[in-house]
Amino acid sequence: MINTTIFKICFLLVLIQISSAKWTKPRRLNILKHSSNHIRDDRCRQFKTFTQKVDHFGYVNMDTYQQRYTLNTDYWQSGKPIFFYAGNEGDIDLFCDNTGFMWDIAPLFDAMVVFAEHRYYGQSLPYGNQSYSKPEYTRYLTSGQALADYAYLLDNIRSSIKGAEQSPTVVFGGSYGGMLAAYFRMKYPHVVVGAHAASAPILQMTTPCESFSRIVTQDFQQESPQCVDIIRSSWDAINRIAAAAGGLRRLSALFKLCRPLQSADELKNWLLDMYGNIAMVDYPYATSFLADLPAFPARVFCANVTASSFDTINDDEDIVRRIVKGTNVFFNYTGQTDCFDTGSQGSPSLGDLGWSYQSCSEFVMPMCSDGVNDMFEKQDWDFQAFSDMCFAAWSVRPRLEWPYIEYGGKNVTDLRYYSNIAFTNGNLDPWSSGGLRVTVAPTLPAILVTGGAHHLDLRAANKADPPSVLQVRQQIVALIETWIS
Amino acid sequence: MINTTIFKICFLLVLIQISSAKWTKPRRLNILKHSSNHIRDDRCRQFKTFTQKVDHFGYVNMDTYQQRYTLNTDYWQSGKPIFFYAGNEGDIDLFCDNTGFMWDIAPLFDAMVVFAEHRYYGQSLPYGNQSYSKPEYTRYLTSGQALADYAYLLDNIRSSIKGAEQSPTVVFGGSYGGMLAAYFRMKYPHVVVGAHAASAPILQMTTPCESFSRIVTQDFQQESPQCVDIIRSSWDAINRIAAAAGGLRRLSALFKLCRPLQSADELKNWLLDMYGNIAMVDYPYATSFLADLPAFPARVFCANVTASSFDTINDDEDIVRRIVKGTNVFFNYTGQTDCFDTGSQGSPSLGDLGWSYQSCSEFVMPMCSDGVNDMFEKQDWDFQAFSDMCFAAWSVRPRLEWPYIEYGGKNVTDLRYYSNIAFTNGNLDPWSSGGLRVTVAPTLPAILVTGGAHHLDLRAANKADPPSVLQVRQQIVALIETWIS
Repeated sequence: MINTTIFKICFLLVLIQISSAKWTKPRRLNILKHSSNHIRDDRCRQFKTFTQKVDHFGYVNMDTYQQRYTLNTDYWQSGKPIFFYAGNEGDIDLFCDNTGFMWDIAPLFDAMVVFAEHRYYGQSLPYGNQSYSKPEYTRYLTSGQALADYAYLLDNIRSSIKGAEQSPTVVFGGSYGGMLAAYFRMKYPHVVVGAHAASAPILQMTTPCESFSRIVTQDFQQESPQCVDIIRSSWDAINRIAAAAGGLRRLSALFKLCRPLQSADELKNWLLDMYGNIAMVDYPYATSFLADLPAFPARVFCANVTASSFDTINDDEDIVRRIVKGTNVFFNYTGQTDCFDTGSQGSPSLGDLGWSYQSCSEFVMPMCSDGVNDMFEKQDWDFQAFSDMCFAAWSVRPRLEWPYIEYGGKNVTDLRYYSNIAFTNGNLDPWSSGGLRVTVAPTLPAILVTGGAHHLDLRAANKADPPSVLQVRQQIVALIETWIS
Repeated sequence: MINTTIFKICFLLVLIQISSAKWTKPRRLNILKHSSNHIRDDRCRQFKTFTQKVDHFGYVNMDTYQQRYTLNTDYWQSGKPIFFYAGNEGDIDLFCDNTGFMWDIAPLFDAMVVFAEHRYYGQSLPYGNQSYSKPEYTRYLTSGQALADYAYLLDNIRSSIKGAEQSPTVVFGGSYGGMLAAYFRMKYPHVVVGAHAASAPILQMTTPCESFSRIVTQDFQQESPQCVDIIRSSWDAINRIAAAAGGLRRLSALFKLCRPLQSADELKNWLLDMYGNIAMVDYPYATSFLADLPAFPARVFCANVTASSFDTINDDEDIVRRIVKGTNVFFNYTGQTDCFDTGSQGSPSLGDLGWSYQSCSEFVMPMCSDGVNDMFEKQDWDFQAFSDMCFAAWSVRPRLEWPYIEYGGKNVTDLRYYSNIAFTNGNLDPWSSGGLRVTVAPTLPAILVTGGAHHLDLRAANKADPPSVLQVRQQIVALIETWIS
């Protein structure tokens, strides 16, 4: 049984990767779930479970599942706030480890700290290992169901912990979790008094498709215009080498790939993901995600790309060798990796499967590039191809209009009736392209984190933090004080 | 095929009625759907249809259905408001006919007037005649799906009618439609700027079960305490007559029933519904619902009950004859009916089926009576029996907690973050027992209609209207002005 499931999951994964054109491959929103050797917090591994209905929106399916969450009362006083993290597309312990801000400020508020795992991720699998095996099981993976889970969980916490009945709850989240934090306050203001929505691309579904690529490019451009030129020229260089006799073998060797390339696209997709990821984690201090990374990885990447000088047989190979040198920053900073797998920039996980499904249903985030205003190959957004890929993989087709029907944002001013949501976005973060960056109502402040990559503000305080993020965190603390009063 | 369906529907209907104890029978919320010969407005029959997804909350079922609605632009000017009625459990033309207030004030606002039919009612049947035939078809009958329908419909109206893109929308509704109006503003404030929720029992699910019975009793009590005494004593009188040899035959003859009674409960249920209905439609002018009714029907009922004098063989029969005389006010005011059917107080319709399903899933409204503080027989609320009946009829069981999880109201102060909803309730209306009758936030005014029965304020202006309802309507007009500005 389990073998069959694993086969099906692998089949789906392969299908998604084979059939996805460059920009139709769903981008992961949050790099955190791929963390491997970051700091582990024991408080993030004291798991509890809560019995949830699989289908909150219908009455026919009476199945239940066990949702995993952590709950910490080290700082909590009776009647004082609950800080609730709206888990996103991965294991909840990793988000818990990487959201130090909540732990940093919990003592200020005598707050309880809760991290809830999103259904279909981590160990919160409605149908266990079968959860992704067929449409009848996968159909309950939606943001709406996840929000209802959170409402039920909080109702249970409030009614079962003495002194928590009247505790005001503040919801936090980063990336897709930030979207959920905003949506949770929007749809359930009777449950949460306010939301800190960090790097939440709630408008990505309606944002021009080239926006993401341009911010990635800007991040590298501000480090080195020459670096961007080299990256931009690398695509044709790769194409020309690939087209020559033995070219794919040559590229596989240059990039030290574990398996020989089947196509130039395979290599280019891998590099595309890398550039996006470097921009997302362009933090001002060393972090340990896919591998150990230096502070300001885009800067280090570009230093490698521009400084190197190689004894190459032609210009194309010189360019490629420069890119290879750069890639080592991301994939092999410590020099301990023998070869690289282009299939994934982390271990294949249910998290990837889940996000593939979600981006094939509710959250289509169009991506494209023009090669002029960005450093990528020209690539149009092809919705039909994307939709066909989704149908082949999941037997579903996306509904482009659903997010703005359900959560608003077709006209951002229509959001003005919502309240108590702080939308924070870093100017280095490519996902800020889909963030709410205008303040549409006094209680919906749009806050810029200058020098901030993907939800830097949610991370624990660090002495290398730029002044902006310190100010933003103070601002959030002040907002929370008004929300809970 | 159709015959099979009708059989199944009838089977379900019979099952519900047979297996329902007195107070476990779901009460209908809105008498209007049983209207027969009231004034028909041609504007309410210019139907349009819009293609809706059957399942907004999942992606596996890609079925669609045709939602019926009316749209009138007689008064509308480009950019001016849309008045939107959130259809409830019945044919939309009947709500349209009976919501004269929207038509009365549309010219003041140059407003477009839209009435949307609720899925699974009228002709908006997701699976046609099969809609109630099996759980797989019935499962999409929920308030959440209906609200998403309304959001999609309004998005379509706004984007397809030139000049409507920026039109602010105000939602109206009475009874269950009032609940939907409130919920629509709560969950979709990016779609509607405000809501007039008339006689919306949003707290009925958590209100003490005896509340409804007590208000019905008060309505009769204020007309005649003696009348209430006679009604209260009638239950035992009926029981004693029924227990005697030939008693059911005797009761059937006294009440002029078309079919002989099978049990005393059958008669008592029929009378119970009648008392509730008289209280609901206790309007200050003659109306034509189930049959033609006089102004103040509770008053006329009591006048008949208390004034009559009969040549009876014992006290019990005297009491019963008085009740019979009263029932004629409700069932045979014009004297044109030969016999009465205890199976229903209107024609069996899909509307009844739908409300049975909804009260078996989301909207359990507990009802009970103690025979001391009300004029009914003592009857406890038996949730388990109700749930078992639901499962037998629909293969679903109610979720008592869902309305307050999803829409709030467990603590009414938690509703304070919502805005721009006027909750109106009439003091004569038994459903006001579940209405929000305290103002929990400045923009959520709870407004009392003194002398008002079930959503009197939504009806067209009438010269017999009490001063209170005139003031309330003025207040609503002023609120709408602030909402749309």
